[in-house]
Amino acid sequence: MKTYLDCIPCFFAQALAVARISGANENMQKKVLDEVAQLAPSFSMESTPPETGRIVYQLVSRLTGNEDPYREIRKNSNQFILNLYPKLEAMVKNSEDRILTAIRLAIAGNIIDYGALPSFNSGQAFFNIEEEVRNSLKSKFSIFHYHEFKQALDNTKSILYLGDNAGEIVFDKLLIEELRKLDKEITYVVKDKPIINDVQVKDAHDCGIDKIAKVISNGGDAAGTVLNLCSKEFLDIYHAAPLIISKGQGNFETLSGERAPLFFLLKVKCPVIARDIGCKVKDMILKSNLPTPPEKTPTPHTGSLKT
Amino acid sequence: MKTYLDCIPCFFAQALAVARISGANENMQKKVLDEVAQLAPSFSMESTPPETGRIVYQLVSRLTGNEDPYREIRKNSNQFILNLYPKLEAMVKNSEDRILTAIRLAIAGNIIDYGALPSFNSGQAFFNIEEEVRNSLKSKFSIFHYHEFKQALDNTKSILYLGDNAGEIVFDKLLIEELRKLDKEITYVVKDKPIINDVQVKDAHDCGIDKIAKVISNGGDAAGTVLNLCSKEFLDIYHAAPLIISKGQGNFETLSGERAPLFFLLKVKCPVIARDIGCKVKDMILKSNLPTPPEKTPTPHTGSLKT
Repeated sequence: MKTYLDCIPCFFAQALAVARISGANENMQKKVLDEVAQLAPSFSMESTPPETGRIVYQLVSRLTGNEDPYREIRKNSNQFILNLYPKLEAMVKNSEDRILTAIRLAIAGNIIDYGALPSFNSGQAFFNIEEEVRNSLKSKFSIFHYHEFKQALDNTKSILYLGDNAGEIVFDKLLIEELRKLDKEITYVVKDKPIINDVQVKDAHDCGIDKIAKVISNGGDAAGTVLNLCSKEFLDIYHAAPLIISKGQGNFETLSGERAPLFFLLKVKCPVIARDIGCKVKDMILKSNLPTPPEKTPTPHTGSLKT
Repeated sequence: MKTYLDCIPCFFAQALAVARISGANENMQKKVLDEVAQLAPSFSMESTPPETGRIVYQLVSRLTGNEDPYREIRKNSNQFILNLYPKLEAMVKNSEDRILTAIRLAIAGNIIDYGALPSFNSGQAFFNIEEEVRNSLKSKFSIFHYHEFKQALDNTKSILYLGDNAGEIVFDKLLIEELRKLDKEITYVVKDKPIINDVQVKDAHDCGIDKIAKVISNGGDAAGTVLNLCSKEFLDIYHAAPLIISKGQGNFETLSGERAPLFFLLKVKCPVIARDIGCKVKDMILKSNLPTPPEKTPTPHTGSLKT
C-alpha cells in the first residue's frame, strides 16, 4: 500500500507520541515536530507508510537519544496478556471451530498497536482488551477468506507467521498451538531491532513462542515487512513459503502489493487502510492475497506485483 | 487557550481537508502540505489555535485560488436546518424549561463544525444531526453553569451572542427567540470574511436572524474571536457587553483567557480542548468565564487576563 496524503498529518502525530513516550520535554517535542516538518516534503508517496514511519521514528530516536522507548510497554503488554492466557486458551478449547476462534482472538490482540493509535493517551491504556476479545468473538468479518485459508492449510505443512506487536504475540500463540495440532510447522518472524511495540526475538522467548515455533528475525527494523530492508536469510524463507500468515496493519501496508500466498489477519484501526481495503475502521479482516483462491499447494513465488 | 503541540498534526489534517474541499488535485494537495510544513516551525505556540488556523487557511486559499471553499456547504447547512426548524421549535415549546432546551439544542447545532472535524469525509456529512439532537436533549452537561447563566440573564437586558457556524445558526435562532420572550435585546455577531463554515452577515440574513436580533460583524476572519483582529466597532460593543454568549470551540479557544462576562456554549469535539477544559470529547459545556458567579449586573470590562 502506498502512502496517502492523509498519512502525513499522522506521521506528525506519531512523532509527537513517540517523543513523549521517549521522555522528551516540551521543547524537544517541538523540535521533533519541526524536524519532521523539514523532512515531510521529501517523504516519498510511493513508499509504504511503514517505510516513511521508520524514517520518522529514527529521527525521534536520534533527537531524544532513546533508542527503544517502547521497551517497558512491550514487556508489560506481554506480561499482561500472558496472565490472560489460560482464560483465552479455554475460550479456544470450548469453541466449536477452534481454528476460527484462535483467528478471532489473534485479531483481537491486534488492537495492541502503538503505531496506529498514537492519540494523546501516549503510553497509557487506550483500549480495553477484554472488551476487544468479547467483540472479536462475535463480530462479523468484513473480509472473510476462511474457506481459502482452510484450503491452503490442507495443502501445506509449513507456515510462515509474520508477527506484529508485543502482547498480541500471546494471542498469536493460541493460533500457533491450534495449527500445531494440525501438524503444521510454524516459523514465527519478528523484527530485528526495536520499532514501536513490534516484537523481537526476546519477546518471542518471553512468551514461549520458541517452544512451539522456529523464531527468526526478518533482519529489518520497520513496523512491517519491508522486503528490501530484510535479510537474505529471511527473504529465502519468505519466497519459499507455501503459506504466510501476516498479522496487523504494518505487515498489510508493506506486503499488500506482493504476489505471495499471504493471508492478512488484522483489525483495521486507521481510516486510510480502511479506505485502501474498502472497509471501515474497527473491521476484522481475514484476507487472502492470492488473485484466485488456492486450489492446490501454492507454488513458491519470487516476484512482487511491483516488479 | 494557547496552541498545544497536538494542534500541529491537526493543522496539517485541516489544510488537507480544506485543500480537498477547495477542489485541489493530488499534486496541489501535496503542495499545500509541503507549504504548511515549511511554515509549521514558525507557528507561535502562544497564539490561540484559530490564529494559526487562519494562517493555514489563508495559505490554502492562496495556493488553490479558492477564497471561499465552504460557500455551498454553508448554504446547504443553513437550508437543511431551516427545514428542521419547525420540529426543533416544537421541542422547545413542549419542554418544561424552554431556555434550557433551547441551550441544549444550540449546543446540538455546534456539531456542524468543519474545522474541528476535518477527517476524511471532507465535504460529506460526518454527523447525524437528528441523533445529535436526541443526545443533546438527554445528555448531562459536564460543566453546567446554568444557575449563574439565569442569574446573569435576570440582571441584564442586552446580550451579545457570538455566532459560530452555518446550520448551527438556525439552532441559535431558537435560543434567541426564547431570550426575546424574556425581553432581552440580542446582538448577533458574525465573521466579516469567509473562514471555514463560520457564519457571515449573509447567513444571518438567510436564516432570518436579522428579524430578531441586531446582526453585526466582528470585523475579523478567524474561526473564533481574535480580539486584535476585530474591528473597533465590534470591540466597543464587546467591551461594554454585560452578558456574552459564546458559541463553539473557536470562540472558546480565542476567548477562554479573557476577563469578560462570557458564557461558553459548546460541544467538545477536539481532545486538546477537552484536556484544556478538563472534560471529554463529546461533552456538552455551559461554562461561565467569570471567576465568581455573577451576583449583580457584571460591570463593563476592558481588559483581558493576558494584559
